[in-house]
Amino acid sequence: MKNTSLCYLERRGAYLMLHRTKKEHDENGGKWIGVGGGFEEGESPDECARREIFEETGLTVGRLLYRGVVTFVSDEWGTEYMHLFTSSDFSGEATACDEGDLEWVMKDDVLSLNIWDGDRIFLRLLANGAPFFSLKLVYKKDTLVGATLDGETLDITEV
Amino acid sequence: MKNTSLCYLERRGAYLMLHRTKKEHDENGGKWIGVGGGFEEGESPDECARREIFEETGLTVGRLLYRGVVTFVSDEWGTEYMHLFTSSDFSGEATACDEGDLEWVMKDDVLSLNIWDGDRIFLRLLANGAPFFSLKLVYKKDTLVGATLDGETLDITEV
Repeated sequence: MKNTSLCYLERRGAYLMLHRTKKEHDENGGKWIGVGGGFEEGESPDECARREIFEETGLTVGRLLYRGVVTFVSDEWGTEYMHLFTSSDFSGEATACDEGDLEWVMKDDVLSLNIWDGDRIFLRLLANGAPFFSLKLVYKKDTLVGATLDGETLDITEV
Repeated sequence: MKNTSLCYLERRGAYLMLHRTKKEHDENGGKWIGVGGGFEEGESPDECARREIFEETGLTVGRLLYRGVVTFVSDEWGTEYMHLFTSSDFSGEATACDEGDLEWVMKDDVLSLNIWDGDRIFLRLLANGAPFFSLKLVYKKDTLVGATLDGETLDITEV
C-alpha cells in the first residue's frame, strides 16, 4: 500500500508534463505524467505535492487545488492511493528533472501522448471541473480492466 | 503509515456517534468518534467507508459525500491518513457494534462529548460546509500541538 501525490501545473492552457525516461525499473517508464511522488514520513498530501514539485521542477507552488483521490489496483504492483492536485499558482523557472524530461504540453494534446489509459479518465474530470472525486482504476499489467467513479462503474470501452 | 475512512452519518440534525468502549488497546478508547476503520487490500476510500459503516452499524449507505483528508501525526502512533465522509443517505436500522456504543447525538452536543481536540476542528469545517480540505493534526500523546489547514497554520489555542 503506497500513498503518493501527483500535480498538474497549468500555464496558458498547457500542463507541465514529465516524460519518464531516466529512472531504471520505473513502473511509469516511457509514460507521460504530472509531477509527484511518494509521501515521506509525517507529510500531508499537499505537503508531499509541494516538496515533489520543488524537487522535480525547481518551481515553488502557492495555492494547490485538491481535486481527487485515485485508487490504483494492479496485479503487478501494490495498491496505490494517489492524491491529485492542480495549480496555476507557482513561481520560478523549471529546471532539469532527474526522473525524465519536463515539457509544457497543450491540454488538448496531452491525451495523444503515451499516457496510462486510466489517466484519460481523470484528465477529463479535471478538464470538466468535476467536484472532488474518488476514482478507482484496476489494471492487469498495462491494461485498464475496470474503473469506478464515486462508487459508479464506468464504461471503459469509451476510454 | 495507515489509511482509514471515517464517516459521520446525519439524521435530523444528529450524527451517529460511536462511544469506543469495547476494544482493548484502543487508541480511541473512551472517545466518541464517527464510524469507520482501516482500508482493506484494494479498497478505495469510499468502499472502505461503506464496508465499515455496514459492519459497525448494520446500515447500508447510498451517496457518500467526500469531505476531506486528515493527516494525523503522533509521537505514539504511526502517521494516519483519514478519509472523511458524511452521508444522510442510508437505510436499515442501526444494530449493536462490537467496538462500542452507538448513539445519535445532536450536532451541537457533539462538541461537548469526550472527543479528540483536533476533531473539533474538522467537525466545525463539516458544519460550515467547507470545501474539500486537507487538515494536518499533530499530537503529543493525547494533546494537540499543531494544526495546518490546506497549508495554513491554525491557532490551536482557540480549539
